[in-house]
Amino acid sequence: MISYKRHGLMLAGMILACSFLMTAVVGGQDPLPSWNDTAPKKTIIDFVNAVTDPGSKSFVDPEERVATFDNDGTLWVEYPMYTQILFALDRVKKLAPQHPEWKTRQPFKALLEGDMKTVAASGEKGVMEILMATHAGMTANQFGREVSDWLAANQQPRFKHLYTECIYQPQLELLEYLRANGFKNFIVSGGGIQFMRPMTKKAYGIPPEQVIGSSVISEFKIVDGQPEIIRMPKIGFIDDKAGKPVGIYEHIGRRPLLAFGNSDSDMQMIQYTKAGAGPRLGLYVHHTDAEREYAYDRESHVGKLDKVLDMADANGWIIVDMKKDWKRVFPWNKF
Amino acid sequence: MISYKRHGLMLAGMILACSFLMTAVVGGQDPLPSWNDTAPKKTIIDFVNAVTDPGSKSFVDPEERVATFDNDGTLWVEYPMYTQILFALDRVKKLAPQHPEWKTRQPFKALLEGDMKTVAASGEKGVMEILMATHAGMTANQFGREVSDWLAANQQPRFKHLYTECIYQPQLELLEYLRANGFKNFIVSGGGIQFMRPMTKKAYGIPPEQVIGSSVISEFKIVDGQPEIIRMPKIGFIDDKAGKPVGIYEHIGRRPLLAFGNSDSDMQMIQYTKAGAGPRLGLYVHHTDAEREYAYDRESHVGKLDKVLDMADANGWIIVDMKKDWKRVFPWNKF
Repeated sequence: MISYKRHGLMLAGMILACSFLMTAVVGGQDPLPSWNDTAPKKTIIDFVNAVTDPGSKSFVDPEERVATFDNDGTLWVEYPMYTQILFALDRVKKLAPQHPEWKTRQPFKALLEGDMKTVAASGEKGVMEILMATHAGMTANQFGREVSDWLAANQQPRFKHLYTECIYQPQLELLEYLRANGFKNFIVSGGGIQFMRPMTKKAYGIPPEQVIGSSVISEFKIVDGQPEIIRMPKIGFIDDKAGKPVGIYEHIGRRPLLAFGNSDSDMQMIQYTKAGAGPRLGLYVHHTDAEREYAYDRESHVGKLDKVLDMADANGWIIVDMKKDWKRVFPWNKF
Repeated sequence: MISYKRHGLMLAGMILACSFLMTAVVGGQDPLPSWNDTAPKKTIIDFVNAVTDPGSKSFVDPEERVATFDNDGTLWVEYPMYTQILFALDRVKKLAPQHPEWKTRQPFKALLEGDMKTVAASGEKGVMEILMATHAGMTANQFGREVSDWLAANQQPRFKHLYTECIYQPQLELLEYLRANGFKNFIVSGGGIQFMRPMTKKAYGIPPEQVIGSSVISEFKIVDGQPEIIRMPKIGFIDDKAGKPVGIYEHIGRRPLLAFGNSDSDMQMIQYTKAGAGPRLGLYVHHTDAEREYAYDRESHVGKLDKVLDMADANGWIIVDMKKDWKRVFPWNKF
C-alpha cells in the first residue's frame, strides 16, 4: 500500500508538471488569433491569467474552473432560423405519409403546404406541437440517429456548409484556451439537450455529459426484451432564461466563473455567474456583421439582444461586437 | 498558427505519455488490494484489460468509458437507515421552534416525541412531507451549508466514524483503478443530488457534475438584488429504479460500460448498462457481513436485494459477497 501511494504521488507530480508545461507553451503564443486586439480579448486573457496564477489572490482551484456557453448564436449560427426548428420542419415532411391527419390539422397543414406565415401565427403552442410530433414517440437511439443523419446531410443555405461547420472560429479558440487552462466547458442552451449531443464533441470538443439543454420527459421500458429509453411527447425541462441557472445547479452543481451568451435569454445565466465571489466574466456576442454573418439584435425573432444592451455597462457585462472584435468568423474563412 | 499547432501536438504527446506511464505504474501493482482473489476481482480486472487494450476487439475509446455507481449501500453504509433520512429527522428537531404547528401535526408530532413507529406508519406520504419540510424553502447555498455542517458533526452510531468515513475501501480502490484506466465515474443514486454533492469529491474523488440523484424543483430568483437558486417543496425527479437509466440519459447522454449497485432499485440501471454493445459489467454488493458491516437482503427495509438474487445468474450479473470477496471493508479497518 505504501509503495502504491508513493507511485500515486509521483504520478500526481508528473501530471502537474505536464499541466504547467502546457500552460507555459500556450502562454508563449497568441491563444486567440481570430480575436482582434480590442478590449474583450484583453479582458478575457487578464481574467484567465488572474484565476490561474497561483500567486494571485484571485486564484481559483482547477476543480472550480467552470465555463458555460449558450449554443445558438454563441457557438454556431442561429439566423435566420434556429437549426433545430429546421430539423423539426424537415421531419414533419418526412413523417407526413404516416400522418394523413396532418393534411387537415394545423399547424401541420400549413407547414406541408409551405405556408410558413400560418405556421408562425400558430405561435408557441403550434411550435410545441411540431416539436413534440418530431422529437418524441421514439427511442433515444432512434432520435440520436435521426439527428446525426440530418446534420450530416443538410447545409446552411447561405454559407453552403454543414450547420456543424457554421461555428465561430474565435469561440473554438476560446474553448481550447479555457480547456488548456484547466477549465471544464459546458454548453447551456435553450435547444434540445439530445439534439445537441450528437455534434458537440466533434464541433467543439465538448462531450455529451457537459451539454445541458431543454428536454422531453423520457421513460425506461423493456421493449421486446430490450431495455430502451423512450422519448415522450411531454416537455420535461426548459433550459432557457431563468431555466439556465437552474439547469446549471442541477447538472453542474457549482457556479460558473465565466458565462457566454448572445441574447436576453442568457441574462439570468450571466447574472447568476457574476454574482459569485471573486472574479467572474459575463460575455455576449453581438451580431453586428451583415457581411460575414448577420446583423440583428433588438427586433430579431431569434436570439433577441435587447435589454442586455441597455444593462451591460451598469452590470460589467462584456459585449463582443462581431464586426469589430472578431478577425475571422468561421473556420473556413480565409484571413 | 502552424507553430501553435505543432506545440499542441507536442502537448498531446506529453499527456499521452503521462497517461501511459500512469497505467503502467498502476498495472505493476495490485490495483485492488482490499479485494480477495475471488471471481469478482478477476472479472473486473479482465473486463478493464479488455476494454483498454488497443489490440483487443473489445477496445473502447477512452471518451466512452463511463462507469456508474449507486451510493447508499454501494459506496457508503445505508443500514440501519439511509443517512439522508437521519439528516432530515435532525433537521425537523432543529426547525421545530419555528414550526409550532408540528406539535399537533403528523408525522412531525410523532417524530418530535420520538415515536418512530408512528413516523414509519405514515408511509411514503409522511416521509415525503418530512423531506419537503427539511430540504426545501431555502436557497441552494443555505442547503449546501446545512448538509456540510451536519455531515461534519455526526457519526455513524455503530462505527463511531463520520458518515463520510463509513465508505467502502474496496470501492475506493475500484473507483481509482477505473479512473487510472480512463473511466469517468458517476454516482447514480436515489438519494438527493444536492445532499450528496458536498461530500462526493472528498470521499470518492467524484466532482459534483458527476453526481446524479433525486431532486426538488428549483427556481431562479433575484432576492434583495442577489441572484439565487431557491429550492421549492415539490419533487422534480426521482432517480430510482426506472428513473436511474433516465437520469443517465439526461445527465450523461451515453450508456455506461460498468454499473454497480446493491439492491433491486439498481436493476434497471444494470439492465440498461448490460444491453449495450460489446462487453459490459453489472455488479451488486451483497451485504452478507454482520460482523464487519451488516447482513441484510430480501426482507430489508433499506437497500432490499431480492429479485436481483434470483435473476443474477441468468443475466450475467456479478454478486459481490461482502464477507467472501472483500478483504477489508472500511478505510480505517486494519488488515
